[in-house]
Amino acid sequence: MTTHQSIRRLSRIAALVGLAFVAGTVAAADGKAELQALPEAKAGNADMVELGKHLFFDTRLSGDMGVSCASCHDPAKGFSDGMPLSAGYPSVEYFRNAPTLINSRFKNVFMWDGRLDGADMGTLVRDMLTEAHTMNMDSRLMQERLSQVPEYVAMWQKFRKDDINGMRVYGVVGEYVKTLVSQNAPIDRFLKGDGSALTSQQKDGYEIFTGKGGCVACHNGPLGSDGQVHNTGVPENPEVLKNPNRTVTLLRHYATSGMPNYMNARTDLGHYAISKDPADMNKFATPSLRELKYTAPYMHNGMLTTLDQVVDFYNQGGGQGSELTPLGLSGSEKKALVAFLEALSGEPLNVVAPTLPDYQPRQFGKN
Amino acid sequence: MTTHQSIRRLSRIAALVGLAFVAGTVAAADGKAELQALPEAKAGNADMVELGKHLFFDTRLSGDMGVSCASCHDPAKGFSDGMPLSAGYPSVEYFRNAPTLINSRFKNVFMWDGRLDGADMGTLVRDMLTEAHTMNMDSRLMQERLSQVPEYVAMWQKFRKDDINGMRVYGVVGEYVKTLVSQNAPIDRFLKGDGSALTSQQKDGYEIFTGKGGCVACHNGPLGSDGQVHNTGVPENPEVLKNPNRTVTLLRHYATSGMPNYMNARTDLGHYAISKDPADMNKFATPSLRELKYTAPYMHNGMLTTLDQVVDFYNQGGGQGSELTPLGLSGSEKKALVAFLEALSGEPLNVVAPTLPDYQPRQFGKN
Repeated sequence: MTTHQSIRRLSRIAALVGLAFVAGTVAAADGKAELQALPEAKAGNADMVELGKHLFFDTRLSGDMGVSCASCHDPAKGFSDGMPLSAGYPSVEYFRNAPTLINSRFKNVFMWDGRLDGADMGTLVRDMLTEAHTMNMDSRLMQERLSQVPEYVAMWQKFRKDDINGMRVYGVVGEYVKTLVSQNAPIDRFLKGDGSALTSQQKDGYEIFTGKGGCVACHNGPLGSDGQVHNTGVPENPEVLKNPNRTVTLLRHYATSGMPNYMNARTDLGHYAISKDPADMNKFATPSLRELKYTAPYMHNGMLTTLDQVVDFYNQGGGQGSELTPLGLSGSEKKALVAFLEALSGEPLNVVAPTLPDYQPRQFGKN
Repeated sequence: MTTHQSIRRLSRIAALVGLAFVAGTVAAADGKAELQALPEAKAGNADMVELGKHLFFDTRLSGDMGVSCASCHDPAKGFSDGMPLSAGYPSVEYFRNAPTLINSRFKNVFMWDGRLDGADMGTLVRDMLTEAHTMNMDSRLMQERLSQVPEYVAMWQKFRKDDINGMRVYGVVGEYVKTLVSQNAPIDRFLKGDGSALTSQQKDGYEIFTGKGGCVACHNGPLGSDGQVHNTGVPENPEVLKNPNRTVTLLRHYATSGMPNYMNARTDLGHYAISKDPADMNKFATPSLRELKYTAPYMHNGMLTTLDQVVDFYNQGGGQGSELTPLGLSGSEKKALVAFLEALSGEPLNVVAPTLPDYQPRQFGKN
């Protein structure tokens, strides 16, 4: 379905359930889609965040203790991994790019194929910890590992009265992920009224973004994402079929989602694997435009290396099967658009990994 | 319940379902329990066995490709691992000894705690491949990995017309495991009528085994195992509580089996974790006595290093809470018993790991 159909359908659903229109293209009072400043976010429970931060960096949360969340979502790389395709669990190689976690709390859809609801951070964390190609963890093994660390038991009991519980750990990690929010990005200052926050070139870029380029049609709201899936015709990453370990994870993903005739698939079919609606073939969730400065390479399969390449790609109307039409931007307009995109990144978060406590043999009645 | 109660109950069940008495203590025509020669075994499908053998040695069947079945069931170590406690999946450490796989096809119960029915080899293999502490494999990931190996696809299609199927792979590996059978053990030649197959000391040992020692009460049938669970009071392996990684797998096993109040457990409770019947506390499946020559150390937790120690342990009536009474064997009787136990091992199987094929990029319509 097209974006406009999506919006109509969502509006209809919103009307049916008596809610204001909260998903899809974010529109200003005059009905035009617009970028928005990041909203204020409620602070989480500090004790839960502190434990969640430790767990985020602790390899004990992966099956063979080979990786932590931070392995693919590295603070030094904008909470992504700097590679076109994610490495995944030791010996497993993945077929998509690891997205940044910054501003996850504002997302209304997770995963490149739009598989998970953004409201459900706990489920997202559970999937990443337990999926065979990411952290391959068994919940009960994780629970017992964490229970063998007296410091974690003490941190847990600061906010809960029970024992460490595998199912709740996901929400605790999620509580930390929710704290990763853009810091002082020029775009936020600009949208809140500080006209000096953007350079004049960036302001030109903003004009193109919302006008001639039409980018804002899909890249809107606080994240620069409509939370919908679209086909922009990004070319396949040939590495997926060249490297059997990557083909494995592609096909296993299809097998898991129950995609019909998946054994014959040789391309990344995006949202179709989830919805099984042929209209969703090659559609991927609109990514956030924030923190792009730190999160190259770009697109769901890392096929574009620089923002200049990304703008060139959109300027030509995307690739094969794209929903887009060519933009007809001049060289300076493209440069202005790139400059504007850079204004959507905040200051580095400078998160430092905590010192992790070691195991201690259990003592009856103590840990 | 005692062995005698078990036997009575099994006899009753056999009578109720109209079957001959096939489980529990194996009795001769005169009603006395006895050792038996290994029965002839039906040969498996050779093509399936050949693929199963490859898969047995292929680390691609574990989550991070760190281990294969052969890592803990090493042909050079009698298809066990030579360690008191099994290492398990990379970074995971286990709390029980890895048993030999030789003669698995004749077992009527699998796992030290008697958890699995011996008739269900496929389920045993599935558990070992997918359990977090052994090979931590995802069935669908395994299926896709194997499908990326053209040689495996060709080997599969020698005996099946469909694609490699994750669920069937377990049975294929099981078909290979079934081929691991004692070769030309003195005990088999002896029980089939070759009086010269045992030395005179071993014959003395056999007399003790079936007479004064009473070993045959539980160690009977073709494997020297009644397939029941018993408490012989084997002391705890202190390493389990000293090494938190081992405590983790013990407690995770309890959590998985739904054992009540498992967080307070500090010992290996054996069959109780499965049955939840307090009468089953500290009971473990009677192991096979075959191939002991190659499979030291002994007992469910590897606490006894030599057969002399094992015989000493039984001679004193076992440990705390044991069902046994002291045997009152002299030094020479104990030596004879050990000599007899050695006659229950066959010739080394001399299995050589096959050369494993590599991945090859998939070609549409080919692999």
